[in-house]
Amino acid sequence: RVDIHPHSHQHLRYNPLRDTWVLVSAHRMKRPWSGQVEKEEEDRVPQHDPNNPLCPGNTRANGEVNPDYNNTYVFENDFPALQPDAPDPGFNQHPLFQSKAARGVCKVMCFHPWSDVTLPLMTLPDIIKVIDKWAELMVDLGSTYPWVQIFENKGAMMGCSNPHPHCQVWASNFLPNEATLSDRCQREYLKTHGEPLLLQYAKMEAERQERVVVQNADWLAVVPYWATWPFQTLLLPRRHVQRLTNLTAQEREGLASIMKRLLTKYDNLFQISFPYSMGWHGAPTGPYLKEDQFHWQLHAHYYPPLLRSASVRKFMVGYEMLAQEQRDLTPEQVIHLGNSITATYATVYIS
Amino acid sequence: RVDIHPHSHQHLRYNPLRDTWVLVSAHRMKRPWSGQVEKEEEDRVPQHDPNNPLCPGNTRANGEVNPDYNNTYVFENDFPALQPDAPDPGFNQHPLFQSKAARGVCKVMCFHPWSDVTLPLMTLPDIIKVIDKWAELMVDLGSTYPWVQIFENKGAMMGCSNPHPHCQVWASNFLPNEATLSDRCQREYLKTHGEPLLLQYAKMEAERQERVVVQNADWLAVVPYWATWPFQTLLLPRRHVQRLTNLTAQEREGLASIMKRLLTKYDNLFQISFPYSMGWHGAPTGPYLKEDQFHWQLHAHYYPPLLRSASVRKFMVGYEMLAQEQRDLTPEQVIHLGNSITATYATVYIS
Ligand SMILES: O=P(O)(O)O[C@H]1O[C@H](CO)[C@@H](O)[C@H](O)[C@H]1O
Ligand SMILES: O=P(O)(O)O[C@H]1O[C@H](CO)[C@@H](O)[C@H](O)[C@H]1O
Repeated sequence: RVDIHPHSHQHLRYNPLRDTWVLVSAHRMKRPWSGQVEKEEEDRVPQHDPNNPLCPGNTRANGEVNPDYNNTYVFENDFPALQPDAPDPGFNQHPLFQSKAARGVCKVMCFHPWSDVTLPLMTLPDIIKVIDKWAELMVDLGSTYPWVQIFENKGAMMGCSNPHPHCQVWASNFLPNEATLSDRCQREYLKTHGEPLLLQYAKMEAERQERVVVQNADWLAVVPYWATWPFQTLLLPRRHVQRLTNLTAQEREGLASIMKRLLTKYDNLFQISFPYSMGWHGAPTGPYLKEDQFHWQLHAHYYPPLLRSASVRKFMVGYEMLAQEQRDLTPEQVIHLGNSITATYATVYIS
Repeated sequence: RVDIHPHSHQHLRYNPLRDTWVLVSAHRMKRPWSGQVEKEEEDRVPQHDPNNPLCPGNTRANGEVNPDYNNTYVFENDFPALQPDAPDPGFNQHPLFQSKAARGVCKVMCFHPWSDVTLPLMTLPDIIKVIDKWAELMVDLGSTYPWVQIFENKGAMMGCSNPHPHCQVWASNFLPNEATLSDRCQREYLKTHGEPLLLQYAKMEAERQERVVVQNADWLAVVPYWATWPFQTLLLPRRHVQRLTNLTAQEREGLASIMKRLLTKYDNLFQISFPYSMGWHGAPTGPYLKEDQFHWQLHAHYYPPLLRSASVRKFMVGYEMLAQEQRDLTPEQVIHLGNSITATYATVYIS
């Protein structure tokens, strides 16, 4: 048997949270790139823009005026993908033409009154206010809706159309595909192996220290063994926590601190405000609050699009869309990269 | 019960080929867009570029010289994601750290000696040569490999790094995720409903004529009822055909003609050379050639990234990555849009 060199030989890795495989072809980083180059960072954003509907005191599309808020501010999305009162389509129920009612609400949550900050540039007390507001929204919307998706699209490259620091919260009367899949995988893992999947995974990664990016007493951020995006990370509590709402005050402090460190590392990697989509997954809510959800472990996924530099992204296209996701460097190489770069972009902010 | 207005009320639709749902929120098209705007079309591409490794007579990265080819030309990818001799990783087989050997080959196939043409601008006899070469590669590579993925990334927006008209063919010793999923869905549909899924679907769409973009005696191109990308289409033979290799000479002619018409419509939609990723799915090969694959129906998926214009794309980010795919207009609206636009960009080429 020939020895494997994971940095030069392709192989498959299994994603136990999605029951899929990723093709890892590390040697692909050697190929020259003459494709699309992304625009470099936007011009400096002003602290307050009188025309930005997300800033304090400004008027939004529907005529409402934002209050002079001091930390977070939540309002209903003016162009929601989910509305509470959509009727049941019920028009065509042939197995090939199935539709279902979709009801819900979409909220926007500003992180801070200033447009020129991002989470890694905010103070720990201000980040804790964001976490507390997330938990509050989970309680409110989760009291009736089975799934409440908190997510942040950061950077124009990730479809974000407003530079003001904010996230979105979409609550729905259905379990979305990714939630259904993750629920099934975690449920089956517990049944077969007797321990919640991500609780066991966090313990093993903490022991191995091969893919850990940042860690503290209560949290761990790793490049998962099965990462598909080049710099993808998974943020995990060490304790068994099913939902954001179950975090203790100490765990919220620890979360603020590890988020700040993780996101500062991201910014430092290519010396830019690092683009990504991120979101929280926890046990479903609404009617599921009454059911046993022991198999669930709270976690956040970070999916950043960049590959080689601030302007060369990974395209998940052709083979990835039609066949299977493919990555051009191993998760272990990423860690090495992350540690070797000089942290200057946001150094002063590292706590 | 309130009447549903599919163009203003969101609802879910079921994708029977992937066993997932898509959120259709047609009213979202009304929201203003102030996010990223894509670069307009590249400069005119020269017919022959002495520095392009895909042109006839030029030297590639590995020192090989391309022949003076007249129609298609196939060579091994100089930076393959799959190589035939990768060893078995076998290093770590804990259920959370599973890896597997991945072996295969990656080929590049030029469609035409000229860099300044695309499939819709090529003549029918030249498109037939492309189809014949696809079938030939399926025979060759499919004799041993279980999955041969033919795919085309068109346009810089879809990660294509070379403007010369070409596709790629990646053959693997494993069934990729999308193939496994599609195989399972088609197999179960046949078992439950007694007819191959896509054969029944093509018949029903041909009868309804609500989502058909182009059609001829042997083929049908529809915006599937469950489309996720705004202008996604599905290309289907009318006869039960399991693999590209089983197409008759007449069906290949019909395919060339419908591809030319479909892609011309795409180009005309926003008056540009329309970007997309496309690929063929058919019954698996290699060891599966000996097994019953009656549930399979050959088809091609077209996934174009644009949403509102030549420069505003649909971002599949945040909610889509973390929860579920969401579209901003109904498949039926797309058809209407497609028919109402004036066909000028490539009119002269419509056969
Ligand atoms: O092989 P290419 O054209 O250089 O690369 C392109 O297609 C590949 C297969 O879909 C992707 O993995 C790459 O991210 C993309 O840039
Ligand atoms: O709601 P936004 O920020 O305007 O829009 C962005 O995020 C949404 C949710 O992920 C996506 O559906 C849109 O394609 C994207 O542009």
